[in-house]
Parts: sequence; C-alpha cells; structure tokens
Amino acid sequence: MNVAIIGTGIMGNAHSNAWRNAPRYFAMNQKPVLKVACGRNAAKLRTFANNWGWEETDTDWRRVVIRDDIDIVDITTPTHLHHDIAVAAAQNGKHILCEKPLARTIKEAVAMADVADSAQVVHYLNHNYRRVPAIRLAKEIIANGDLGEPYHWRSAYLQDWASSGAVPLRWQFRKDTAGGGSHFDLNSHSIDLSRYLVGEIDSVMAMMTTFVGERPYPMRRDENPSSNRSLGKVTVDDAALVIAAFDNGALGSFETSRFALGRKNHSTFEIYGSKGSLSYNQDHPNEIRFFNGDDPSHSQGFRTIPATYSGLQRDMNDWWPFGKTVSYGDEFHLAIYDFITAIETGGEIEPNFHDGVKGLEVLVAAVTSASTGREVSIHQDVTSSD
Amino acid sequence: MNVAIIGTGIMGNAHSNAWRNAPRYFAMNQKPVLKVACGRNAAKLRTFANNWGWEETDTDWRRVVIRDDIDIVDITTPTHLHHDIAVAAAQNGKHILCEKPLARTIKEAVAMADVADSAQVVHYLNHNYRRVPAIRLAKEIIANGDLGEPYHWRSAYLQDWASSGAVPLRWQFRKDTAGGGSHFDLNSHSIDLSRYLVGEIDSVMAMMTTFVGERPYPMRRDENPSSNRSLGKVTVDDAALVIAAFDNGALGSFETSRFALGRKNHSTFEIYGSKGSLSYNQDHPNEIRFFNGDDPSHSQGFRTIPATYSGLQRDMNDWWPFGKTVSYGDEFHLAIYDFITAIETGGEIEPNFHDGVKGLEVLVAAVTSASTGREVSIHQDVTSSD
Amino acid sequence: MNVAIIGTGIMGNAHSNAWRNAPRYFAMNQKPVLKVACGRNAAKLRTFANNWGWEETDTDWRRVVIRDDIDIVDITTPTHLHHDIAVAAAQNGKHILCEKPLARTIKEAVAMADVADSAQVVHYLNHNYRRVPAIRLAKEIIANGDLGEPYHWRSAYLQDWASSGAVPLRWQFRKDTAGGGSHFDLNSHSIDLSRYLVGEIDSVMAMMTTFVGERPYPMRRDENPSSNRSLGKVTVDDAALVIAAFDNGALGSFETSRFALGRKNHSTFEIYGSKGSLSYNQDHPNEIRFFNGDDPSHSQGFRTIPATYSGLQRDMNDWWPFGKTVSYGDEFHLAIYDFITAIETGGEIEPNFHDGVKGLEVLVAAVTSASTGREVSIHQDVTSSD
Amino acid sequence: MNVAIIGTGIMGNAHSNAWRNAPRYFAMNQKPVLKVACGRNAAKLRTFANNWGWEETDTDWRRVVIRDDIDIVDITTPTHLHHDIAVAAAQNGKHILCEKPLARTIKEAVAMADVADSAQVVHYLNHNYRRVPAIRLAKEIIANGDLGEPYHWRSAYLQDWASSGAVPLRWQFRKDTAGGGSHFDLNSHSIDLSRYLVGEIDSVMAMMTTFVGERPYPMRRDENPSSNRSLGKVTVDDAALVIAAFDNGALGSFETSRFALGRKNHSTFEIYGSKGSLSYNQDHPNEIRFFNGDDPSHSQGFRTIPATYSGLQRDMNDWWPFGKTVSYGDEFHLAIYDFITAIETGGEIEPNFHDGVKGLEVLVAAVTSASTGREVSIHQDVTSSD
Repeated sequence: MNVAIIGTGIMGNAHSNAWRNAPRYFAMNQKPVLKVACGRNAAKLRTFANNWGWEETDTDWRRVVIRDDIDIVDITTPTHLHHDIAVAAAQNGKHILCEKPLARTIKEAVAMADVADSAQVVHYLNHNYRRVPAIRLAKEIIANGDLGEPYHWRSAYLQDWASSGAVPLRWQFRKDTAGGGSHFDLNSHSIDLSRYLVGEIDSVMAMMTTFVGERPYPMRRDENPSSNRSLGKVTVDDAALVIAAFDNGALGSFETSRFALGRKNHSTFEIYGSKGSLSYNQDHPNEIRFFNGDDPSHSQGFRTIPATYSGLQRDMNDWWPFGKTVSYGDEFHLAIYDFITAIETGGEIEPNFHDGVKGLEVLVAAVTSASTGREVSIHQDVTSSD
Repeated sequence: MNVAIIGTGIMGNAHSNAWRNAPRYFAMNQKPVLKVACGRNAAKLRTFANNWGWEETDTDWRRVVIRDDIDIVDITTPTHLHHDIAVAAAQNGKHILCEKPLARTIKEAVAMADVADSAQVVHYLNHNYRRVPAIRLAKEIIANGDLGEPYHWRSAYLQDWASSGAVPLRWQFRKDTAGGGSHFDLNSHSIDLSRYLVGEIDSVMAMMTTFVGERPYPMRRDENPSSNRSLGKVTVDDAALVIAAFDNGALGSFETSRFALGRKNHSTFEIYGSKGSLSYNQDHPNEIRFFNGDDPSHSQGFRTIPATYSGLQRDMNDWWPFGKTVSYGDEFHLAIYDFITAIETGGEIEPNFHDGVKGLEVLVAAVTSASTGREVSIHQDVTSSD
Repeated sequence: MNVAIIGTGIMGNAHSNAWRNAPRYFAMNQKPVLKVACGRNAAKLRTFANNWGWEETDTDWRRVVIRDDIDIVDITTPTHLHHDIAVAAAQNGKHILCEKPLARTIKEAVAMADVADSAQVVHYLNHNYRRVPAIRLAKEIIANGDLGEPYHWRSAYLQDWASSGAVPLRWQFRKDTAGGGSHFDLNSHSIDLSRYLVGEIDSVMAMMTTFVGERPYPMRRDENPSSNRSLGKVTVDDAALVIAAFDNGALGSFETSRFALGRKNHSTFEIYGSKGSLSYNQDHPNEIRFFNGDDPSHSQGFRTIPATYSGLQRDMNDWWPFGKTVSYGDEFHLAIYDFITAIETGGEIEPNFHDGVKGLEVLVAAVTSASTGREVSIHQDVTSSD
Repeated sequence: MNVAIIGTGIMGNAHSNAWRNAPRYFAMNQKPVLKVACGRNAAKLRTFANNWGWEETDTDWRRVVIRDDIDIVDITTPTHLHHDIAVAAAQNGKHILCEKPLARTIKEAVAMADVADSAQVVHYLNHNYRRVPAIRLAKEIIANGDLGEPYHWRSAYLQDWASSGAVPLRWQFRKDTAGGGSHFDLNSHSIDLSRYLVGEIDSVMAMMTTFVGERPYPMRRDENPSSNRSLGKVTVDDAALVIAAFDNGALGSFETSRFALGRKNHSTFEIYGSKGSLSYNQDHPNEIRFFNGDDPSHSQGFRTIPATYSGLQRDMNDWWPFGKTVSYGDEFHLAIYDFITAIETGGEIEPNFHDGVKGLEVLVAAVTSASTGREVSIHQDVTSSD
C-alpha cells in the first residue's frame, strides 16, 4: 500500500505521524509504505520527508497522482486544491484520504464524490473528531437507545488565534482559498458530528460577522520583516452563529468564532433526548458526561465517564495501554486503521465524500441565510450547482 | 413602608421571606411592614399569611391596591394579571415590585411603564439574577474595561421539568396566561442579563418548537385523581433558539428549553471581548470565571473567582459572614434592599419597567422571526402596539 | 420555647437568623421566642439584639442561665467558655445548643455530657455540615449500602485567612481560649463527618506546625491604630495532618490549614468503598459525586448529583422551592428544626455532647501523636482526664 | 546509538514507541537504533520485536548487556531484576534508562548508583510525570518564585484495579518481586514529584494496609482456566498514607491506594506557598491550576492554565502542533529526547539513580513508620543497608 501525501503543513505532519504509527498500534495486514511526499517548496519538502521517512519527494502533485505504484493519495493542502487533486487521483484509481472541509462549494464537492464513486475508490473525509474514543462512546450510547428521541443539539467550536489584527492574511482568511472562515473550518466539524450523532438537518438560520476586515499580507521569505506591510481584505467570517431544525424534529445550534479569548481549541456539544443527555468538551477529550433518566431519582446526575476505560472502548482500543489518556494525534491513528481496513475489505468508511457534500449543503445554506436574513431549507433551497 | 403582596405561589413565598429578612441583613432606615397578603383561595391565603407574618389578608387585589395605608404593591401572580394590577397600583401612587416577565405583550408593558412614570412611583422588575453577587462582580469587571470591546454573548437557560407529557396544562403552557413558554420564562432572564452586561440588541433570528402539543388539564381540588383527564392544547414554545446582533457589533445567542434532561435550573453565559472573557454557570452561583488577556503568556487561563470573597463584593456584602456561599434566596434580599433604598432616596432601580419593555421587544421580535422565517430588526420592525 | 443566646459574634448572627427563620421554613408546633441575648459589650449587644429582634439583653450569662422563663440556652462564645455555661445551663434544666468544638479538653467535654445527661436535657453540638442537604444525601446513599464496605476516608479543610502575619492574635490563636488551632476549628468538623459517614476511629498519627509563631495583640477600641503593636505567642497549630485507622479497617486522612492560599472555606472529602465511592467539595455545596460500581462497565463514572433535587431530599426539604440552591445559612435552619423537634418529642438529636467527647478524644490523640511522634490508640491511650 | 530493551510488557511497549518516535518529534543528532529486544518468552518476544521494529531478539539479558555494539540498556522488567541488570550494564559501560521504582531496597539502589557513577554512564530513572508539560510549567512557576515559601504538599495517587479479590497474585503483589505495593508503585511517583517541586523530606509517619490478604495464583499458559485456583499470600500494601515534614518546614501528605473505586489513574497534587498555590489532576493532564496571591483582590482565583499553550511550553514543545493535547505517551518521548541529549553533551539528566536512592529512603522510612508506629527521620534513622 504505497502512499503519496500532498501538503507539508500542520496536517501533513499529523498525517505522516499517523501513517508511520498506525500499523504498530493496530493489527493490519497491509502496511502503508510512506512512498512520496509532495509540496511546492523543495527545501521544506526535503526536511519534511527526511523527518517522517517518506522515500521520495516531488514538487508537482500532477506527476504523483498518475504514478502506477501509488495506491493512496492523502490530501492535506489548503481547501481550494482539494477538488483538482481528488478528481485526478480518483480518475487514476487511487484511494483518497482528504482533509476537511471537502471543498469550497457544493458543486466542487459533488464532482469529487461523483468521480470517486465512478472510479470505485475508497474515499474518506478526515473529520477526525468522529474517532475520538469519547465520541465513539457517545455514539454507542446513542445507538443503544439510551438518549431516546433527540430534542436538542447545542455546540460551540471556539478559538482565539485570530483575535489580534496583526495575524496576517493567510489562506484561511480568503474565500477563494478556504471557502469560508471559522464557519467552514470549525462549524464543519460540529455539523459533521451532529449528523453523526443526531441526524440530517432540514433548515437553518444564521448570522455571521467579520471583526477585523483587513489584515497584513503574509511575508515572503525574502522580505524585510521590519517593512510596513500593506493590508488585504478578509473575505470570510470570523464568527458564525447557526440555528437549525433537524429532520427528526430536534433543534440545533452551532456557534463558532476565532475571537473567543482564552479558548484555544474549545469544542463542546450537548445532546438532550427524551431518555437521557450527553455532553462533551474537547478541553477534556478523554471523557464524556452522560445523564441517564432511568437512574433512581435520588442519584440522578451527569456521570463523567473516562471513555478510554469503558468496556465498549476496551474492545476497540487495545492499541494502547488500557485507559491511558489519548491526545490530539490519536484519532488520526484510528482513521488510518479504518481507512486501510476499508480498502482491504472492499468496504466503506465514514465520513466520506458524500458526507462532505451533505456538510457543505448545510454550510452553504447557512451562508445564504446570513446574507439574506431568511431561513433556508436544505432540501428545497440548496442545489448542487451552489 | 406598608407592603401588600399579590400572589401566594413559589414567588409569593420567596418574596415574603425577603421582605422579612432584608432589614436584618442590610442597614435600612425604613423597615417594610408585611401588611396584607392577597390571593384567590382563602384557605391557602390564611396559611400563607400566618407562615410569613402578613398582618391581614384579602382575596381581592382591587380592594388592596386602593388602600391608603399601602405604600408598596408586590406582584407575584401569573403574567396575564401583571398589567391590570400594576396599572391600578400606579394610579393609586403605590411603588411597584413586579415579577418577570413584565407582561404578555409590548403594548401591555408600554402601558405599565407609562402609567408608572406618570405616577412617579418607583417601579422594579424582578430579574433577580442581576443581583447574584457573582454577576454583580461580572458587571464590575466589565465596567472596569477588563473585557474590552464585546464580541460574543453566548447563553443557555435549560430546565427539564416539562419533559414528561404527564405534566399538566398549567398557566405556564398557555399563551393567554403566560405570554410565551420557555422563551418568555427563561430567555427573558438571559436577554435581561445580556442587556445589563453587553448592550442593546439590534436584530434577531429565532426558531422555536413545542415537543408536547397537548397536556392533561390540571385537576381541580374536588376531582377524582384516578379519572382520565381530558387534554388541552399547549399554546407556547417548549424550547427557543435565538441568535442576535447587538448595536455594538457583538453577536449573541440565547438558547432555552424545558426539555433538557438533567438540567434543573441551568443558566450559563459566556462573554468574549477584545481584552478578556467571562463565564457564569448558575449550577455554581458563587463563582465566575474570568480570562484576562493581559496576564503573562505562560500563566493565562480562566480564573475561577469565588465572588463572595472578592474585594468588590466585600463592600456590598457585609450583610452575611464574608465569603459564605449565597443561595437562590439571597438575590431577593438584595432586591428588597435596593428597592427600599430607591424609594427612600427618590432614586431609581434597575431593571425597571422600561427594561421590561425593551426585553419584551426582543422576545416579541424573536417570536415573529420564528413564525416568519426572517430576521427581525428590533428598531424597525417592532412597534409598541405588538 | 424561650431562647437565650450567649455570644454576639459571627455565630451569634448565624444562629439568630436561624431562630427567626426556621419556624417559617418548617412545620413546628413550638415556635422559638427570641427572649434574651447575652454579651459582654453592652453597646454591641444592643445593636445585635435590635437587629435580630431579641426581646431583652443581659451582659452576664450567669444571670441568664438561671432564669425560670428560659427553656433553651444557645452557646456561641469562644470555646473556653463552653464548659462553664453548659454545665450551669444543664444544672438549671435548660436544653442546650452549643457551638463546636465542644470544649478545650476531654475532661471538660465529659463533664458537660455527664451533667447534661443527668439533667435529662436535650443537648446538641453544632457540627452544622451534617445538615447540608448534599451530605444528608451522602448519608442516605451509604445507609442504602451503595458504597459497600468502607476502605478510605480522605478529607481536607483548608482556609487562608491566617496566612498573613499581620492577622492579630485573636482568641483562635491561643490554646487557653480555643483549645487548638486549625485542628480544633476545622479538623473537628472533618472528624465529625467521618464518624457520621464511616465509623469510629481506632488510632491516629499526626504532624502539626505553626508557621507564624508570634502575632500582634489585637487592638483595643481606645488604642491608636498607628502605634507599633507588641507581639504575643501563638500557642496553637496553623496546620495539622492526621492519618487514622478506623475500627472497621478503613484508613482515613484529615488535613487542615489556615495557610492554604486561595482556599477560603474549602472542605472536601472522598469515601471509597467496596461497591462505590462518594466525594463532596464545599465550594459547590449543593452537589455530591457518586460512583456506582454496579453501573454497566461502558458507562461507569462519577455522577454529579444536585442534591437539592433528589427524591430523598424532596421529602426532607419542602421548606424551600424544590431544587433551589442552598447556602451556608441553611444548615442552621435545619439544625433548629431538628433541635426543637427533639425537645418536643422527648427524643435525641445528633451530634450531641457524647459525639463531642468522641471528637475530642480523636483531636487530643492527634495532638499527643504530633508531640510524641507515636501512633496513639483512642481506646487505650486516651483517658477522660486528658 | 544502539539500544537494547529488557522487558516486553506494558512499559516495554511504551518505551519502544518512544524510541521510534522521539527522533521525529525532536531535533536529535544521534538517532536511536532499535537494536535488540530481550524477554524470557521467545514467542511473545518475536511478536513484540516485529511490531516495534527491533532488529534482533535475545531471551537472555546477560548476553545482551555485554555486547559491544550496544550503547544503551533500557530496563522495563519487574523491579527485582533492576539491580542485577543495571549493575551489569553499567559495568559494561552502557548508558541506562530504568523504570521506577529503582529497586526493592536502599541497599540495591545505592549499589546501582555507585556502579553507574563509577562507570561514568548516563543513568535515568523514569519517573515520567516530571515530563508532563503541565508539570514542567508548574516547575517554571515555582522557579519564578511565584509561590513564595512552600507550606504544603498534598498528593494522592489512586487506582482501583486491585479492588476485586479475583485479580491474581501478580508480581506487583509480592514484596520479593515488587519491593512494595501501591506505596512503591504509586507513592514513589508522588514522592519524586514532591522532591522536584518542594524539596527534600526530613521525616515521615505512615499507615499501610492490605485489604485482600490472599489472591489466586496467576494461571500458566497450559492450565485449565476453569480449575479452582489455589491462593497465595499478598505480601505488600494495598494502600498507604504518609505524612511528612520537609527540610524547609513545609508539611506534606502522600496517599495511595489500589482500592479507590472509580479512580483509574488518578494522580493529584496541590502546593500551597506564601505567595501562591498550584494544583494538578492527572485526569486532565493538559492543565494546571494556579492561584496568584498578587492578583487584584476582586479577581483572585485559581487559573486553569492549558499548559500546552503557554509561552514557556511553546519553546520546549514545538514537536507537536502548538497547543494540541498531550497524552500518556508523550512524556516518554520527551524523556528519550532528554536522555539522548544528556549522552550527546556529556551531561546529566534528572531524575537519575541518586534520585532513586533518595526516593527509596522515603519509601523505606514510611514502611518502617507503619510497622513501628513511630515517626522516622530520613536523615537519622535510615541507612544505606536498609
């Protein structure tokens, strides 16, 4: 199983680490081989490849995706490149692991899903939080019926790294490269989790804002750092509030911001149902809180369950000393394992590009609502040409 | 200072307790006299008056509000009676303490504020949470400028008492008596706090739902408890999600439900600003959490401040052993103290009926948004005849 | 039921408040009458009596305890006065409510218990935390057998008010007035709770220390605040660590300090048993955490139970709106109710003076261990003449 | 840098993982080579070596430690083997990384330290928690003087895995193989941290107990699982309580148990000083709580500092996306990095075998105190022949 990775940034590092380690943590018949790493900057690429043990490097992804000896293409680039790489990879019969959000538009996403289906390759969209052990446990509790009918989804994904106006105009602040701001970057995760745990969304209303309208252009390597930097326009949201009705009658809320001082990577959700409730806070990613409405009345309360010790987790999780805390990196290991397993067994993995399409439909509907001031129906008002 | 109380329910008890105790906890020149208690059921009224030491009873509030020896009328009835009692009380020159929400409609609320102003009486609307010591401390921190410019208000007020369909069709489930459901009952508090701590609201979008559409009529005292109870229609929301833009550019969210299993009286808010952040959770009402962006980078974090020990609180709070925990009852004591002080000094107290009007404007705008699927501007789309 | 209170300090205030309010919160046939307040300083005493509604005042407790019209004597003085007042009160047939710790020595405590028994009066020692609703709930859970056999008691009672050397040499810092320092003041509470929840203590080992050996004498009213204050010797501990073996084989730890910066009134305990575990933290006095070893393995975790909403509490607790948070003052209300009920029914109340004797045996044994460096057996090494 | 690892259990896995990954996370000139793995069971050893990429295997550690091509010996065996392996390794000039506790007795530990010093090899004792980023940050805060003079160390290390009597008589329950029970296994960590953060210990008092005195012998591979298992004697403690005086006048407590139901790997400590306080809870290993006595009085409170985002950590920690949560495995990576750096630079690393000797002195003194019922002075009563 020869792997090519495109992109050498933060996600490139996280994925490389996972490709190396997953076969040590899980029983896998097919071991991934770190074949070729791909990035535009040749010097940075060499350092990257040396560090993680990629056998070869190439600065042009178009050459890589057509190589016969490549089985898997792993896309960790900025969002605007996802579509072209994925389509080319699928057309060449490669299995695809793609970072989120899937694309900038529904149209791009639909095209990616269509070509991947036609080519009958395994496609995976890396909403990594579905593989946090605590969230897996939440899924199990819901599947057991312990929450009953869902009434509420309440989520927030808050960060603060953009709250200074001195942060430069990176690709994350531009609609042409990122598709959207905090909404695409962070709400996409929350929306994916709500679909995983509650169900499909029927309609949304939204408000979005941009607190800092202009930012200094990023510095090129050869520039003088002391020079006055000219400013460019931020074309995405800094914060987004979305409320939603689910198909099953539940209500949902999705709040996100890059301007929430003190919140580094703070993702929380609460689910309330007719029989019980659940909450998760990524600041403490090893636990969920579960309220069981069937407990005796004198001892009802939210239980803090250390997920890595639960019986359900034990079966899944013998890749690491039972009960030891997991970290940011670990859900990537599990993703690689599930992805390779899907290839081996000819099966599927979720979330995949179809989930990416559905996520984009909600994201785009919310953008439309924010700009028109109207409730937008996913099923009626959103089309695949958006 | 002779007081007449109208209403003998939960709030009647809480207020009676506060009228009795406040002069023991605070230095007050004018001591309230518990003169007359008023309720429809004569037997229940007698028990109530005996327990708290009300000197007299009357089953007709219309007789009470015209008595020359009454200085203060305290309204703790269901919402639909607020308007008539308050107007009559004001017209007779009584100072008025009124439970929340102020009224069922903006029109009622405006009339109440107008007549109270004309009569030059002191009027107070009991959004009691403004007087939780921890929230007072939050106000001080904001007034000090420690949060900078506000970016976000995020609140939830969640309960679970209505989640069983067996809960009868009390006045709280009927629009004609309550004005609204969880939205009027609980969001009204969150909206009031957001106005206190962040600023005025410019526009809203909202979704609301009713999970249980019909409920058994309440039993009359002479009825057979085993009889099959006929069902009546719930005419208010069980849950409401509101997102908002503030005049100052901040975004806000207000979520409320009576169907959040495990949440008894769970009110939380978070405020994020350009210099710092704050959060409050009513499950732990004696503390706030404060993030100071000016702390050294290696020791930045949310501080859990036990509010009853803070220096600011100390000045306000010498009515109780320094630092001992406060409870649900205590903000009522402080309200009585502030109310009596306003009467003594010819001053004002907040929140008053004008705050009630502004709160109702937001509540009504949200109801309109939920029914029309459109963003509603408070300043342009809401009129005093709503 | 005419009450005389001796002492007008913080506890005098807390008790007065409870005597006034308890009959409003609970159904009591006999209503306490606030008959006479007693304190040495006449001016302070008048203010105190006026505030709380004590009918009369007297500056000499010896006159008060022999009055025929007094039924109950409430002792809130510094510890060294407890013995003489209680003995005189009992000899005159008065029921006695006494603040903790009961006395300075076992000998004093035994004498108090003996005379109270002989006089057949009701005697109560105010370890108020036994009446926190959350701790009542803990007791119920243990009585249900939900923890199984006890293995561990782990407690701390930490404060920080003495950590500045400028705090004057109050009576709390002198062995002749207080009997001991943090150990007598705070560990006495933890030891009482451990006896209530786990069982009797067999032997102890202890270490104690005094961080600030000399403190300025308190200022008299007529002194010049700017004068240099002379220093006196602190003769009690500032902090104490005690480890213990219970009769039933459990191990226990008791830690206390007045030098724990940031801890205001921080009392915590954990109990681990063969079937479950419990923990309590007084910073959040309305909840306990309960681990049930019988929960399904995939959903085991500590439940945060809001005690004031539990079914068990409901029965006990209809004196206040169901589920509203309680505060420091509320356990005093319950104490008054239980005390009056014991008098009415000719019954007993716990903890009483015999509990005070047993508590002192442990306190004294720990002092002996700290000074000798040896394990001390309560049953063998401690005598009633200590 | 050729590495030999002895032991293929949980720690063997954790170390192997770290040897593989550390050079990817940190800039290291010398890359460790996973040369030979050593274990008694040949089949298990082969699986282990294959999984982690150890080049060779050997079932006899005595052959391995004399190989010329081995630079580093990593000891992850049960405790009773540490001495012989370490002495042989040192005598052959190998650098040594050894799991904790260092040995069963002071005598063994002293011998190990002496021979390692004589051989001038780098020796490291893997008290891994010193390398948790949050604890590193605690050390920095203390080194900055932000806590002032230390008054209190309060720690607990609680687990529950032994609370069932069905758990077999593994080597951890036998004094001849483990040296001690929870006291050696878990208190050794707490004692090491207290020495790192507070200072040296002067004297101790202790109580220990064994709740389950006999356990079934472990099953051999060829045994019938349904046979009745005979019982053997547990010769170590299940729980230990230690109180201590530090050289600098602070008091300390160390509590540990394998019978604390609901506590999986629950290690906590609190430090109180004259200027501030700190606390840590391993359930949330990415944060510490810091109370700064110099904060303004109205906003004093414990700050929850997410350690992986702090400025101090940033410098140390660029091996992983800034601020992402760390897990159980990560402190091992850092240990390998520091160990290799010490070898490269001819420097030292802490904790080393001398720290192991000091830790054992405290452990042994506590055992003596528990058996004699007397306070034991580390400096006077403990000798290197113990």
